[in-house]
Amino acid sequence: MNSQTPAGTLGTNGVVVVDPKSIPDVQSLRDTRQIPIDKVGVKNVVYPIRLKTRDGGEQTTVATINMYVSLPHEQKGTHMSRFVEVLNDHAEAITPDEIPDMTRAIRERLDAADAHFEASFTYFVRKQAPVTGMPGMIDYKVTFEAVSSADGKEDFVLGISAPATSLCPCSKEISQYGAHNQRCEIEAKVRFDGTLWIEDLCEIAERAASMQVYAILKRPDEKFVTERAYENPKFVEDIVRDLALTLEDDDRVTWFSINSENFESIHSHNAYAQITRDKRDQ
Amino acid sequence: MNSQTPAGTLGTNGVVVVDPKSIPDVQSLRDTRQIPIDKVGVKNVVYPIRLKTRDGGEQTTVATINMYVSLPHEQKGTHMSRFVEVLNDHAEAITPDEIPDMTRAIRERLDAADAHFEASFTYFVRKQAPVTGMPGMIDYKVTFEAVSSADGKEDFVLGISAPATSLCPCSKEISQYGAHNQRCEIEAKVRFDGTLWIEDLCEIAERAASMQVYAILKRPDEKFVTERAYENPKFVEDIVRDLALTLEDDDRVTWFSINSENFESIHSHNAYAQITRDKRDQ
Amino acid sequence: MNSQTPAGTLGTNGVVVVDPKSIPDVQSLRDTRQIPIDKVGVKNVVYPIRLKTRDGGEQTTVATINMYVSLPHEQKGTHMSRFVEVLNDHAEAITPDEIPDMTRAIRERLDAADAHFEASFTYFVRKQAPVTGMPGMIDYKVTFEAVSSADGKEDFVLGISAPATSLCPCSKEISQYGAHNQRCEIEAKVRFDGTLWIEDLCEIAERAASMQVYAILKRPDEKFVTERAYENPKFVEDIVRDLALTLEDDDRVTWFSINSENFESIHSHNAYAQITRDKRDQ
Amino acid sequence: MNSQTPAGTLGTNGVVVVDPKSIPDVQSLRDTRQIPIDKVGVKNVVYPIRLKTRDGGEQTTVATINMYVSLPHEQKGTHMSRFVEVLNDHAEAITPDEIPDMTRAIRERLDAADAHFEASFTYFVRKQAPVTGMPGMIDYKVTFEAVSSADGKEDFVLGISAPATSLCPCSKEISQYGAHNQRCEIEAKVRFDGTLWIEDLCEIAERAASMQVYAILKRPDEKFVTERAYENPKFVEDIVRDLALTLEDDDRVTWFSINSENFESIHSHNAYAQITRDKRDQ
Repeated sequence: MNSQTPAGTLGTNGVVVVDPKSIPDVQSLRDTRQIPIDKVGVKNVVYPIRLKTRDGGEQTTVATINMYVSLPHEQKGTHMSRFVEVLNDHAEAITPDEIPDMTRAIRERLDAADAHFEASFTYFVRKQAPVTGMPGMIDYKVTFEAVSSADGKEDFVLGISAPATSLCPCSKEISQYGAHNQRCEIEAKVRFDGTLWIEDLCEIAERAASMQVYAILKRPDEKFVTERAYENPKFVEDIVRDLALTLEDDDRVTWFSINSENFESIHSHNAYAQITRDKRDQ
Repeated sequence: MNSQTPAGTLGTNGVVVVDPKSIPDVQSLRDTRQIPIDKVGVKNVVYPIRLKTRDGGEQTTVATINMYVSLPHEQKGTHMSRFVEVLNDHAEAITPDEIPDMTRAIRERLDAADAHFEASFTYFVRKQAPVTGMPGMIDYKVTFEAVSSADGKEDFVLGISAPATSLCPCSKEISQYGAHNQRCEIEAKVRFDGTLWIEDLCEIAERAASMQVYAILKRPDEKFVTERAYENPKFVEDIVRDLALTLEDDDRVTWFSINSENFESIHSHNAYAQITRDKRDQ
Repeated sequence: MNSQTPAGTLGTNGVVVVDPKSIPDVQSLRDTRQIPIDKVGVKNVVYPIRLKTRDGGEQTTVATINMYVSLPHEQKGTHMSRFVEVLNDHAEAITPDEIPDMTRAIRERLDAADAHFEASFTYFVRKQAPVTGMPGMIDYKVTFEAVSSADGKEDFVLGISAPATSLCPCSKEISQYGAHNQRCEIEAKVRFDGTLWIEDLCEIAERAASMQVYAILKRPDEKFVTERAYENPKFVEDIVRDLALTLEDDDRVTWFSINSENFESIHSHNAYAQITRDKRDQ
Repeated sequence: MNSQTPAGTLGTNGVVVVDPKSIPDVQSLRDTRQIPIDKVGVKNVVYPIRLKTRDGGEQTTVATINMYVSLPHEQKGTHMSRFVEVLNDHAEAITPDEIPDMTRAIRERLDAADAHFEASFTYFVRKQAPVTGMPGMIDYKVTFEAVSSADGKEDFVLGISAPATSLCPCSKEISQYGAHNQRCEIEAKVRFDGTLWIEDLCEIAERAASMQVYAILKRPDEKFVTERAYENPKFVEDIVRDLALTLEDDDRVTWFSINSENFESIHSHNAYAQITRDKRDQ
């Protein structure tokens, strides 16, 4: 127990407001352990965000957000409530190009050498069925990972995860008829220069599969996607290689880490392949 | 393999459009197994929905949706694409009072005896810190479960899950100082007459805890919530009983099923209590 | 704060042991709210269990366990630590036929009218590849749900979830070549008389699919499963109907609730069908 | 479609066995895209493993396993079934010191430059209640990450995640009574020389918290852990710093990456801190 006693005036909700200056600031105490901390902050903050879309519109979605700063060895604790305050200040329209500003704002408000901002959320893109043109909505998982450093270094990684269809070339080749196929999840994380929309990266990723998936398929569409997947068999290795080729050729992309996880219809485990390349090394 | 050959005209995307009538409708074939199906449809459709809020505004969020119909024994299959078509038709502003309409629309479009609509999503409510009044946003998990039957029977269950604080009365009583406390998750599902906003049910649920949680707490707020929780110890049993008392007294509520799961800070397992009551039985 | 003071002798770990009788038993206090509780207890207890297998052996696995009792309106709280004590007492070899004993032991130790025991765990079955006979291991998810009541009523539901392959009859019929197929997860919960091994129920469930899945498939096996699935197309409706037919015909089974969820390779959502039947009603 | 026809003799299950040599080996074809793959293999293989324990016994648990190899640019595909064959060969008693052997075996069987083996599983440790000595079982999450390279380089990272209690120093200091506390999850990954048991690392991690958690606590135990946590308040920063100090001082440990995630009882989000240090750099 301790010696704190409430003292002050009535605040909102009719409670006694204590003068904040009279309350000890434990976090600001000096720490003597000589251990700096790489990242400290808040994790799994669920928050609504509004994003600009490629077609000039806007989209509101639900993000799970982590915000961290580095902490020098002599400081006992960070001020956790300030992270969410920065989020409140920037909530009106978070777009990929505003993430660096927000990450810088975290660094400044927390008076830190480095700040990290991470968000993951569902992003919807309208897509028409391939034959009938029926409209539908595909949900992609998107991630932002940003770093801002006091020395001016900034970093931003955009990630997407796109569902798609993979059809096994071996199964097709060795079987009299049919071929096992399955949903796969293609993930692409990129560093880039210039403008790269979420929509751009989703399209690039799903073009590497045997076939795209759709929200609505009428019978002529189902015939089309079935036949196209059969005509376009790909191992999990082929998917990541074809995606790597496209990203190698895209001048905006300076670094990429891509993978595909195929939920094999003939096994209870998954097939997986992964490639990471830093084009700046070349 | 089979005898299908493509025939038709060029459609969107430059592919050959097959006359849908020339494609067999396998789902409409007659089934002879004499086994009716309780529920058949689509599960885990991720879809943006827009909801009216209690304060007269609107909120866009991301829902995970299941839609099912019953299938009579003589019909081989349902038409899965129609479920998402109904969703597209009603996407503009789904509010709790429009769920019955949408469920009825599913039943009619699928020509079924019963239709089921289920949605779960994050719902945000603005909440001020208890002393400083700092604004923040709390995320609740919300569920809709609706049934529409050809005989006119309709059913709607609203569910919410609210994070809160529980503080153990036993730990407080037997210890010289301190008391173990933890985050808990209070779930309330209700059937009701008249108007019951999601916001109403969230407030009812979290008032049953030792203390509410907040997105931002400055030091005077943290002092307040710490002391209030200590002054208001509750077992998991107390939380569900106090919530049951409130719902028993609320004339809008005709049925409820409530539980609290407390993520005990002194164990690696959770404490749990559950009460289900049908007030119409009384 | 309160008046508790430590007093006693040194116990294990060198701490002062307080005479338990001198510590108030808050849970045993009288409650005046007139609200009985349906279920109260511990949730998500992770615990090793040992099971007898059909082939006469044993298998150790990791279970997630919930244990609850009913609480009469006049009792303030249950004694949470006793649940895990019962688990410790019965840990040596939990088999489906010993679950009723353990559930009864919970009811008696907690002095309750009703006790509930729920467990979910991974269960492995050895399975040879269909052509080469290569050995492998398939992991099934299994659930136990037991109730014991003071009036002598006892209940036990065994559930399994088996991964399998489904191949779409419509896609096969309308396409010149190929057919979309995917992993599905077939769940079967049953009440039964006599002996029904987990292995029995897993086999019954996966026989209802287009094809089983395997841990290892060499090329001759892959050819076999690809062709067999193509020869045996099934809608999600067909899977649950064929499974229902088998369970209708199995005299051990008195009640069943079954479903299949197909992770459609052409969509990002799933197809689902469900049937529940009480054969005792007939 | 293709020209494969079945030909051969009857195998197990009465199916025609095709001579494997007559079946094309698509994976071994030459690839011309000039894209090597970092990792390709199987993911989420659920498999029983047996581990030696520090007290000289054994423990069987359920692991989720990933196995990958690197693939040179000229090879079209890897041979997925061989990964699970290696697992079958080594299943009898996987211990941390045998992981390098198995990883090497994967590399050799797949004829690859690099092989990766990853496993995550639940591991149980018996622990007595602090006052009454009541026995219980705590479940830790454990990870193995191993790499074997053709150039002789080998790597092994052991990771554990331990549940524990954290109690907020700020909340204690500023409040008249009480202090918010909560379950936290402390994760420690280490590279090390010599012998470091899973049990060792779990003990090291949980000693950094305000208090350990237990499976069973009788009232004298609950009084003890409540008071000890109150006497030992720690920010999330303190937990990782104290854990870092211990690992800095442990000569077996050459590298560590540690974090704590605290499920704050006063918020719906978590507090998090992370430190990574390579002692070989110093």
